[in-house]
Amino acid sequence: MSNAFSLLLAHPQASLLLGPTAVMRAMLSMERELVLAQADLGLVSREHAQTVASCCAWDHQDELQVDAWVAQAASAGSLAIPLVNALKARVRERDPQALAAVHLGATSQDLIDTALSVQGRQVLTLIDEAVQRVLRALIHLKQAHGQAPLLARTLMQPAAPTVLEARLLNWALPLQRSRQALSRLGQAALTLQLAGPVGDAAVWGQQAVALRQAVARRLNLPLHPWVWQVQRDDRARLAAELGVLVGALAKVGLDVALMSQAEVAELHESAAEGRGGSSAMPHKRNPVGALVALSAVQRAPHRVAAVIGAMAASQERGLGSWQAEGAELADLMIITAGSAAAMADALEHATADPQRMGVHLQTLHSGTGTSAPSLGSDALGLAGERARLWTELERSLMEDSA
Amino acid sequence: MSNAFSLLLAHPQASLLLGPTAVMRAMLSMERELVLAQADLGLVSREHAQTVASCCAWDHQDELQVDAWVAQAASAGSLAIPLVNALKARVRERDPQALAAVHLGATSQDLIDTALSVQGRQVLTLIDEAVQRVLRALIHLKQAHGQAPLLARTLMQPAAPTVLEARLLNWALPLQRSRQALSRLGQAALTLQLAGPVGDAAVWGQQAVALRQAVARRLNLPLHPWVWQVQRDDRARLAAELGVLVGALAKVGLDVALMSQAEVAELHESAAEGRGGSSAMPHKRNPVGALVALSAVQRAPHRVAAVIGAMAASQERGLGSWQAEGAELADLMIITAGSAAAMADALEHATADPQRMGVHLQTLHSGTGTSAPSLGSDALGLAGERARLWTELERSLMEDSA
Amino acid sequence: MSNAFSLLLAHPQASLLLGPTAVMRAMLSMERELVLAQADLGLVSREHAQTVASCCAWDHQDELQVDAWVAQAASAGSLAIPLVNALKARVRERDPQALAAVHLGATSQDLIDTALSVQGRQVLTLIDEAVQRVLRALIHLKQAHGQAPLLARTLMQPAAPTVLEARLLNWALPLQRSRQALSRLGQAALTLQLAGPVGDAAVWGQQAVALRQAVARRLNLPLHPWVWQVQRDDRARLAAELGVLVGALAKVGLDVALMSQAEVAELHESAAEGRGGSSAMPHKRNPVGALVALSAVQRAPHRVAAVIGAMAASQERGLGSWQAEGAELADLMIITAGSAAAMADALEHATADPQRMGVHLQTLHSGTGTSAPSLGSDALGLAGERARLWTELERSLMEDSA
Amino acid sequence: MSNAFSLLLAHPQASLLLGPTAVMRAMLSMERELVLAQADLGLVSREHAQTVASCCAWDHQDELQVDAWVAQAASAGSLAIPLVNALKARVRERDPQALAAVHLGATSQDLIDTALSVQGRQVLTLIDEAVQRVLRALIHLKQAHGQAPLLARTLMQPAAPTVLEARLLNWALPLQRSRQALSRLGQAALTLQLAGPVGDAAVWGQQAVALRQAVARRLNLPLHPWVWQVQRDDRARLAAELGVLVGALAKVGLDVALMSQAEVAELHESAAEGRGGSSAMPHKRNPVGALVALSAVQRAPHRVAAVIGAMAASQERGLGSWQAEGAELADLMIITAGSAAAMADALEHATADPQRMGVHLQTLHSGTGTSAPSLGSDALGLAGERARLWTELERSLMEDSA
Repeated sequence: MSNAFSLLLAHPQASLLLGPTAVMRAMLSMERELVLAQADLGLVSREHAQTVASCCAWDHQDELQVDAWVAQAASAGSLAIPLVNALKARVRERDPQALAAVHLGATSQDLIDTALSVQGRQVLTLIDEAVQRVLRALIHLKQAHGQAPLLARTLMQPAAPTVLEARLLNWALPLQRSRQALSRLGQAALTLQLAGPVGDAAVWGQQAVALRQAVARRLNLPLHPWVWQVQRDDRARLAAELGVLVGALAKVGLDVALMSQAEVAELHESAAEGRGGSSAMPHKRNPVGALVALSAVQRAPHRVAAVIGAMAASQERGLGSWQAEGAELADLMIITAGSAAAMADALEHATADPQRMGVHLQTLHSGTGTSAPSLGSDALGLAGERARLWTELERSLMEDSA
Repeated sequence: MSNAFSLLLAHPQASLLLGPTAVMRAMLSMERELVLAQADLGLVSREHAQTVASCCAWDHQDELQVDAWVAQAASAGSLAIPLVNALKARVRERDPQALAAVHLGATSQDLIDTALSVQGRQVLTLIDEAVQRVLRALIHLKQAHGQAPLLARTLMQPAAPTVLEARLLNWALPLQRSRQALSRLGQAALTLQLAGPVGDAAVWGQQAVALRQAVARRLNLPLHPWVWQVQRDDRARLAAELGVLVGALAKVGLDVALMSQAEVAELHESAAEGRGGSSAMPHKRNPVGALVALSAVQRAPHRVAAVIGAMAASQERGLGSWQAEGAELADLMIITAGSAAAMADALEHATADPQRMGVHLQTLHSGTGTSAPSLGSDALGLAGERARLWTELERSLMEDSA
Repeated sequence: MSNAFSLLLAHPQASLLLGPTAVMRAMLSMERELVLAQADLGLVSREHAQTVASCCAWDHQDELQVDAWVAQAASAGSLAIPLVNALKARVRERDPQALAAVHLGATSQDLIDTALSVQGRQVLTLIDEAVQRVLRALIHLKQAHGQAPLLARTLMQPAAPTVLEARLLNWALPLQRSRQALSRLGQAALTLQLAGPVGDAAVWGQQAVALRQAVARRLNLPLHPWVWQVQRDDRARLAAELGVLVGALAKVGLDVALMSQAEVAELHESAAEGRGGSSAMPHKRNPVGALVALSAVQRAPHRVAAVIGAMAASQERGLGSWQAEGAELADLMIITAGSAAAMADALEHATADPQRMGVHLQTLHSGTGTSAPSLGSDALGLAGERARLWTELERSLMEDSA
Repeated sequence: MSNAFSLLLAHPQASLLLGPTAVMRAMLSMERELVLAQADLGLVSREHAQTVASCCAWDHQDELQVDAWVAQAASAGSLAIPLVNALKARVRERDPQALAAVHLGATSQDLIDTALSVQGRQVLTLIDEAVQRVLRALIHLKQAHGQAPLLARTLMQPAAPTVLEARLLNWALPLQRSRQALSRLGQAALTLQLAGPVGDAAVWGQQAVALRQAVARRLNLPLHPWVWQVQRDDRARLAAELGVLVGALAKVGLDVALMSQAEVAELHESAAEGRGGSSAMPHKRNPVGALVALSAVQRAPHRVAAVIGAMAASQERGLGSWQAEGAELADLMIITAGSAAAMADALEHATADPQRMGVHLQTLHSGTGTSAPSLGSDALGLAGERARLWTELERSLMEDSA
C-alpha cells in the first residue's frame, strides 16, 4: 500500500493502472498472447495453448491472491515468479501435458518490462489528456485577457512591461513540446520485451523474430529495434521527459502561486466548493494546483536521476538496478499525471485580473519615471512571432482533439 | 495504491504503518488526546471533550471511508481536512454545542506532521530490529570464519591479504553507527507538532506550553525545542541518516554480490525454498538480499535529496515543499526497512567458503611472487584494534537485546 | 578554480572550453556580432558599431582581468555585467558617442545563455569524437572475438551461454542512440538567446526578427522556435541526454570492471606505462577507464535532476534556478566528456581472453549438467538480427567519419 | 579549471582551499609528517627521514608542476600517484638510500582522504564564520524590528498575524543547529586516514597504532574510531549536514525574495554600489543573496545524494564511488560556503519596513472582517518561549566569538 503522505500528490487512476492487480493482470495477458502466438507458429500445440490461455483469464479468485503473490515476490526476487508458479499450478491441474507450453522461452523480465509498457501507455494517455486540458485553459485565458498589460518580473523584481499572453506562451510552449516528445518516447520506450533468459530468444529458433512480431501485434505494442534487457536508455529518456513535463508544469504552478499572492492578485486558481480550504482559517483559498505541481518538481527530477543511474546494469540482467528503474519510473508516471491533472483543474476556471496588473505596471512607471511603452502592436519586437506560435498551437490542439 | 514495481523492494509492515488507514487513525487519535488535554487544562468543557473523544474512536465505518477521504484530500490540498470535516459532522450529530471543541487551535499540519512522527517511530523500531539481525549475523560469521585469510581487493583488483573479519568489520561498524544516529534523530525529528495555523499557539493563551507538553505525554512523543512547521532541518537529518543506512547496507550487498559470483564463490546468501529462483533457469540462485539492498541505494539517496530540497519552505508554511517532504520521508522509511530486512534474511544463514578464499589468495602470491604475510596475529598492525571494536560491538548489541 | 578531487574525472579540454576565459571571450564576441548586425540593419551607425566591435577584440589585457571580473560578478549577481561594464568603459574612452551602441537591447542572460551555446557545441563535438572512438573499439573487439562463447550472467549469477558480440552490442547500441540524440538536442538546446530584458525584443522594433537571424548566422548558431529565457525544457532535455550517455558508458565500465576481476579475467582495459598503477602495490593494474565511467554515473544523474528542477523559473527570469542550471549543465558536459574519453582510452587497446570465457562456460555446464547449445548460427534466435544491427552501426560510423 | 557558470555561486577562498595547488601541498605535508613520525618511532632512520622531509617542502617549482601532475593523475587513476612519483624522483636525486622511506606503508587513498580532511576543516571554519554573520544580522534585525506585526502567510496565502521576530526565529534556529552539527561532524568526518593499501596498517607492525596517533597529532587532525577507507558513513553525514545548512539558508533566501517583491516590500537585502544591478535596467536592485542561496538549494541536495550513493564501495577500496565522493563533497563545501557568505552579505545591512508589514496586515483584517489580535505579549501562546530561545541563541553566539 502506498504511503498516506503521497496520496494527495498522486493521480488515482494512474495509481490503479500501475498497481499490483492491474500489473499482474497484464502479465497474465501476456502469457496468454505468448502461448497463442506460439501455437500459431507451431511452437506449441494448439490444444495446449488453449488450455494455458484459458488458465490466463483473470477472475475474482486472482484478485484475492494478489497480496499473497506480492509477499512471495519479495523472497523470489521477482514479481513475475509467483504468478508464473500459480499459472503452472493451474495448468498442471487442468492438463499436466500442457505445462511445457507455459512461459516457454520467456523470462521474468519479459513479463515485468512488458507489463509496464502496456500499463504505462495508458498512463501516458491520461497525462496527455490532462496536459491538453491545461493548454486549452491557457488558450482560453489568452483569448480573454491576452493583451492585458502585465508587469514583467525578472529575478523576482519589476522589470518592464509585457502582456499577459507573452507569459502564457512561456507556459504553453514547453508543455506542447513535452506532449510531442512523450508521444515519440512512448513509442520507443514502452515496447514489447520478449527475448528469454539471456536476451537471445534462442529457444524459439528460427521463429524468434516472427514470434516477437506476433506477440507485439497481439498486445498492440511497438517492437524496439533491439532487446533492451540491459539497454535501458529509452526508458531513461522517457523518465527524463516525464521529469521535463513536471518541470514545465511547475513553472506554471510557481507563477500562479506568485500571481495569486494577496498583494499581487493578478490571477487566481479555479474556485470550487471544498477546494483549497483550511482546517483552521475559513478565509483561506489555497492554490492547491500549484501545491501539487510544486511538490511534483521537488520529487520527480530525483526519480529521473534514479532511472538514469540504474542504467549501469551488470552483464545480461542487472542486480538491483533494473528493479529500481521499474519502481521509480512507475512512480514518476503517477507523479506526473498528478501534477498535470492538478494544474488542469487549477487553470480551467482560473480568473485573471487585468485591473490589478495595470496597477502594478503603473507603480513601476511612477517609481522609475519611465513612460509606458506602446504595447500589443504586432509590428513591435516579437509580438508577431508570438501570434504565429499561438495560432500554430491552437491548430495543433484542434487536430489532436479531432 | 503503491505501484506494483516497488512492492518487491518495500517492507510490508512498514508500508502498512505508513498507509492511509494507519495514518488517518493516528490523526484521529491525536484529535482525541488534544481535546482531552484541553479539558484537563480547562480550555474546553469536560463534557464536550468526552463527546469529541468518543467520536474519535476508529471503527469499521471509518475503514470504509478511507478511500473517500483520500479523494477529498486531493481537492482540499490536505490529508487532514476531510478527516476533520468527518469528525465535525459526527460531533455535530451527537452534540452541536461540542463542535467548537473539535480541532480547537490546531491546524492540518499539526495532525499530519504528528501522525508521521507517531507512525514513523514504529517503523524506526522495525528498522532497528532488522539492522540488529544483520549485525548478529555478521558476528556469527566472524565467530565462525573471521580469521580465514581473504584476498583484499581494491578498485576491484587483487591487492594484498587480509582476513574475513576485517571485511566484516567494515560492514558492521557503519551499521552500528547508523543505529545510534537513528535512535538520536528519531527523538529529534519524530516529535509532536502542535502550534496552530501560524505556529504561535496563540489560541491557547497562557496554557500553550502546558498543552503541548500534555499532548506530547499522551501520545508518548518527545517535544521539539521549537515549533517546526517551517524548520524542517531535523526531518532532513533523519532522512539523511536513513539514506546513510541504506548506503551502508548497499556496501554489504555489493560485497555479497561480488563474493557470490560463480568464479569467486567466497560467500553465499542464505538458501531457502523459493528464495532467489528464476522463472526460466532452474539452476539459478540469485542473491535477492543484495538485489534489494542495491536497488535501495539507487533510490534512497535521491529521496534524501528531495527532503533536503524541500527545506526551502516559504514563510509560515510551505507550498508544495512540506507536502513533498512527508511523501518522500515516508517512502524512504519503507525503502530502508525493506533493505535492512532483506539483508538480514540474506545474512542470517549465509555461508562462507574459507577454502575458496584461500585459493584466490594463493593465486595472488603465485602471480606476484610475493609470499603470504603472517596474518591474524593480534600484535600486527591494527588487528588488536579490530578485536577491541568487535568486543565493543558485541557488548553493545547484547545490552540492546537485554 | 575547480576542486582538486574532480580533476581526475574531468576532461581537460572541455574544462577549458567552459572555463571563465573562454566564456568571457565568447560573450565579447557576441557583443561584437550584435553591434555589427545592428549596423547592417540600420539600428546603430556603422561608425559606432566599428568602434564597439574593435573594443570587443580579446587581448592579453583581458586575460589578466578575468579574475577581477569573476569577483565582481558575484556581487553583481551576473557573469555578464562586469564584462559589459568593462566594454563600456573601453568604448567611452574611445568615443563616448558610441556608448549607446553597446549591448543595445540585450540583457545579461542573452550573453550568458548564448556563450554556453557557443562553447557547449564545441564540447559536444569532443564528446561525439570520444564516443565514436568507443564504438570503433567495440567493432574492433567484435571483429576479433565476437563469436567467442561467453557465459551470460543475470543478477550476477551464471545464466546461459551467449557470445561476446551479443554483450558488445548491448554496449554499443545505446551509445549510438545517444550520439544521434545529442546531435539533435545540440541543435535544439544550444541556440542563440537574444530577446532583451523581458524577452520581447521590443527595442529593435520591426527589425527584431531580422536581427535575431543575423546574429545567429554570424555566430553560426541555430535559432530556437522561441525565446527561451524561461523555457528551459530543451536545455533540460540536453542535460538528460548527457546523463543517459553517462549511464550507457557506465554500463560498459561496470561490465569491464567485472570482466577484469582476477577470477574472471575475460577482458582487460588497454595497458600503458603509468596507466592504472598503485602508489603502494606494484603488481596492480587498475581499470581506470571503468573508474572514471563509474564515478561519472555517481555524479551525472544528479546534475540532470538539478537542471530539470531548475526549470521552475519564476516569471520572466528565474532567481537562482536559471543560474544553477548553467552551472550544472556545464559541469555535466565536462563529466560526460571525461567519461567518454576515459572509456575510449580503456577500450582502444583492450584485450579479450576467449580461452577464459570458455572455461567459465564449461563450469556452468558441468555444474548444471546441461550441454552447451550450438551457438553462433545466424539462423538461431536473434543472431541474424544482431548481425544486421552491427552492419548498420558500422555503416553509420563510416559515414560519420567520411 | 572550474566552469565559468558556477563561479558566481562559489566561495572564492573555499575554492582555493580545495583547489589542486592547496590539496597537493597538503599531500606533500602529510608525506613529511608521516616520515618524521616514522623516524620518531624508529621505523625509518632519522637521516633518511630528514632527507625525505626536506624534499616535501613546497616551492615555486612545484607550483609550476601542478598542471602536469593533474594530467598524469587522470591516466594513473589517482591524484596522489604523480606527486609521490615526483617526490621519489627528488629523493632519489638527493639520496637513493632514502627512497625506501618515502610513502612507506601508506597508500594513495591515505593522502587523498587526509588532504580533504585538512583542507575541508579550513572550509568549515569559513562556513561557520559566515553563518555566524547571518545569525548576528538576524539578531540585529530582531532587536530593531522584532515586535513589528507581520502578516503570516501559509501556502503563500494570508493566514493570520504574527510578529517579525517569529519569522526570524524560524530562520535562525536551524542555522544554529547546523553550526553545532557541523562542528561535531567535522570532528567525525574530517580525520586522519592512514592504514596502507588494504587498511590494516600491517607494514608498521606493532607501531601502527602509535604511528597513526603521532601523524594525527602532527597534522592536528582527529583520529576516527576506525580506518574508513570503505566506511564512508561519516563523510556522508557531513555531506548531508552541509546540504541541510544549504536548505536552511535557502529558506531564508526564499523568504527574503518574497518579502522584497515590489508589491510586498517588507524587507530588502543590503544595498551597495554594484550590488544586484542589471545590464539593461538601471532601476533594478536584484536580491543577489537570495539568488545564490536559491541556486545552492537547486544544487547541493543532489550532491548529498551522490555522496550517499557513493557509500556502496566494493571490497577494500571502491572503484569510482570513493573518487566521486571526494569530488562531490569538495564541491558541496564550496557551494555551502558560497551560500552562507552571500546570505551574510545580504542580511548584514538588510532593511525591514514595519510600515508596509502593517499595511498588509490591515488588508487581511479588512478582507476577513476579523480584528487584529493583541500581539507581542510574552504571556500569550509561545511568545515567552520564543524570547527564551532568542536569549539562548544570543548567549551562545557571544560565547563563540569570545
